[in-house]
Amino acid sequence: MAATNVGVVLARYPHGTATVDDFAVVDVETPPLDAGDVLVRNVYLSCDPYLRGHMAPGGSPLGQPITARTVGVVEESRHRSYQPGEIVWGFLRWERYTHVRSGDGLTRVDPALGPIRFAVSVLGMPGLTAYVGAIEIGRPEPGQTVLVSAASGAVGSVAGQLARLAGARVVGSVGRPEKVAHVMRTLGFDAAFDHRVATAAGTDGRGLSEALEQQCPEGIDVYFENVGGPLLEAVLERLNPHARIAVCGMIAEYEQPPEVGPAGIRGLANILRTRSTMTGFSIGDHVHKLPEFVVRMSAWMRSGQVVFPDDIVDGIEQTPAAFVGMMRGDHIGKRMVRVSDDPHPDS
Amino acid sequence: MAATNVGVVLARYPHGTATVDDFAVVDVETPPLDAGDVLVRNVYLSCDPYLRGHMAPGGSPLGQPITARTVGVVEESRHRSYQPGEIVWGFLRWERYTHVRSGDGLTRVDPALGPIRFAVSVLGMPGLTAYVGAIEIGRPEPGQTVLVSAASGAVGSVAGQLARLAGARVVGSVGRPEKVAHVMRTLGFDAAFDHRVATAAGTDGRGLSEALEQQCPEGIDVYFENVGGPLLEAVLERLNPHARIAVCGMIAEYEQPPEVGPAGIRGLANILRTRSTMTGFSIGDHVHKLPEFVVRMSAWMRSGQVVFPDDIVDGIEQTPAAFVGMMRGDHIGKRMVRVSDDPHPDS
Repeated sequence: MAATNVGVVLARYPHGTATVDDFAVVDVETPPLDAGDVLVRNVYLSCDPYLRGHMAPGGSPLGQPITARTVGVVEESRHRSYQPGEIVWGFLRWERYTHVRSGDGLTRVDPALGPIRFAVSVLGMPGLTAYVGAIEIGRPEPGQTVLVSAASGAVGSVAGQLARLAGARVVGSVGRPEKVAHVMRTLGFDAAFDHRVATAAGTDGRGLSEALEQQCPEGIDVYFENVGGPLLEAVLERLNPHARIAVCGMIAEYEQPPEVGPAGIRGLANILRTRSTMTGFSIGDHVHKLPEFVVRMSAWMRSGQVVFPDDIVDGIEQTPAAFVGMMRGDHIGKRMVRVSDDPHPDS
Repeated sequence: MAATNVGVVLARYPHGTATVDDFAVVDVETPPLDAGDVLVRNVYLSCDPYLRGHMAPGGSPLGQPITARTVGVVEESRHRSYQPGEIVWGFLRWERYTHVRSGDGLTRVDPALGPIRFAVSVLGMPGLTAYVGAIEIGRPEPGQTVLVSAASGAVGSVAGQLARLAGARVVGSVGRPEKVAHVMRTLGFDAAFDHRVATAAGTDGRGLSEALEQQCPEGIDVYFENVGGPLLEAVLERLNPHARIAVCGMIAEYEQPPEVGPAGIRGLANILRTRSTMTGFSIGDHVHKLPEFVVRMSAWMRSGQVVFPDDIVDGIEQTPAAFVGMMRGDHIGKRMVRVSDDPHPDS
C-alpha cells in the first residue's frame, strides 16, 4: 500500500455558508489490512449538497476524513470477493486511499456500462434519486408541467430529462444565467429561468411568482424539490390540482445558521386547496432498485436520450474549494474531484 | 309553501376572526317552484370550520344566504324522485326553507341508519372526511401513534376513534381544558392535551414540543391535520420515519387577515429527514365512497365502537353566534343549528 495517505477533514463546523477554512487537507494514518479488509485507491470523490447537512455537531466528526461516495480501484485486498484492479464504489471517505473494513458497503462497477465516474452520479445514487423523485413519486403524465429546481445539478439534470422522456413539459430553475442555456440546449429542457435574476427583477418580492407564471403558464403538476425557501413558496401558489412535490433536498435550509433556524414556508394551505402531496424521500430506502436502474439508465445514455455533463476538478487539495464552490452553484454538471488516474479514461 | 323565509347572510367579509356582526339574519324571497324543483324545510344547519375559508371576496357573495350542508324534510316537490315528507341532505343554504332547482345535489337520508342529523356529520361528509384522512391516507398500523388536532370536533372525534379501531394509540389535541376529559372519557382516546395550556406552560416557546414529547413518547406516525400553525411545526419535529400527514384543514390559516397572510411553517425539512408524506385532501374527490361508508359507519355506531356527541343550538337567529363560537372552540361535539322540528326526534 501507499506509504502516505491524505484526507480532507472538517477543521470546524461551518456556520451558515461553508467556507474553505472550515476544512483542512491533512496526512492520515491508514492501518494495515486485516483479513477481509480492502484498500481502495480512490479515483473520484463525489461532492454533493446533502453532505452540508452532515457538517454539524452530531454529524461528521471534526478531524476525520469526511464520509462521501467515491469510486476507485482495489489496490490491495484480503477479501475473497475483491481482486486488485477491480473498480468499486462505496460510501468511503474524502481521502487518497480508503481502508475498508470487511469490504463493507463496496459495490463492484462494470466499466462496460459507461465511464466509471458515472458510478457516483448518473449510474449511481444521484441517478436513482432522480428516477425515484421524478418518476416514481412525481408520476408525470404526458403534457403535464414538471418543474425541477437545482436543474443543472447532478440530480436535477437527470430528473428533468427523465420527466421529459415520460412526455412532460419540463422547466428548470437554476442559479446562474449561463445555466439557463445549458439546461435548455445541452439537457433539452423546454424552458428554464435563473431564480436569482427572477427574484431581483420582481416587484413587491413577487419575482419568483412572476417567473413561474411565465414559465409554467398551465400551472405545476410535479415539483422536484431541491432547494426549499422562497422558490417553494412560489411553487405552492401555482400548484395544479393533485400536484406531487417530491422533496429530494432543501439546500436553502441546510445553510441556515442554527440560531436562525430554517425559515418558515408560507402558503402551505395550498397543499390542502389543491389536494396535493408533498413526499420526502431518501435514496437509502431505494438502493435495492439500483442494479435494475443502472442497466436501464445505461441504455438511455447510450442511445443519447439522457446526457450527463461532468464538472471535474483535479487534485485532492482542491476538494474544499470544489465543495464550497458547488454549494455556491459554481459548477455546471456533476461536481467531483479526481484524486488519482482513471484506469478507464476513454470508456 | 311557507309565506315567509329567513336566511343567514354575510353582512361583510370577516377580517381575521369572524364576529357575529359579520352576519345578518334577514327575510329572503323564495320563488315558486318550477317543474323539477323541490322545497326543503331545513331542520339542521351545519356549522363547519371550512366555511370560514369561503367567507372572503370571491367566495360567498355578501347579502345571500350562506351555502352549507343542511338536512331537512321535503316540504313541496315538483321533482318526480322526491315526495313530501322524505328526509334529504344537500349543500343547501343557511335558511329556513331552501328552494332547490331541479333537485340538484339532494341526497335521500334513511332514518333507519341513525338520527337524521347524522347525515351532515358522522354519517355524512365529516364522517367520510375522517375516514379518508385517518384510514386511507393515514394508514395507521397497530401500535403506531396517531395525533389528531381539533380532536373534539366533528371530523377529529371520528378520525381518532377510527384510528383507534385500527389498533393505533390515539392522542388528541384540543383547545379547552374540559375537552381533554371529553376526548379521553367519551371518545376513548388514549391521551389528550390542551394546546393552549401547553403553549402557555412551555419555556422558550417550546410548550407544544414539550407536550408532544410527553404525549407521544414514541414519536408520531400519523398526524390528522386540522389546524396548521405552531402545532404543525411541533409535529414536524417529532415525526417518525415514513410518517403520514393527512391535511384536512388549516383553521389557523383561514383566520389570518389577508394583509398578514398565512404564517410561515418552520421545519419543513423534517418531511425530508423522515421521508414523510403530507397529503392535502378534499372530500369532494371522495363522495362516491359515501354510500358504502354510511353502511359501515352506521354499524360501528350501533355496536358502540364509535360514539358521536352533538352540540345543538336552537333557532336560526342563533346561527351567527353558533358559528363564531365554533370557530373559537366553544363547542364539544358537532355544532349544528336546529331551525325546525325534527320529524324523527327519537331515532
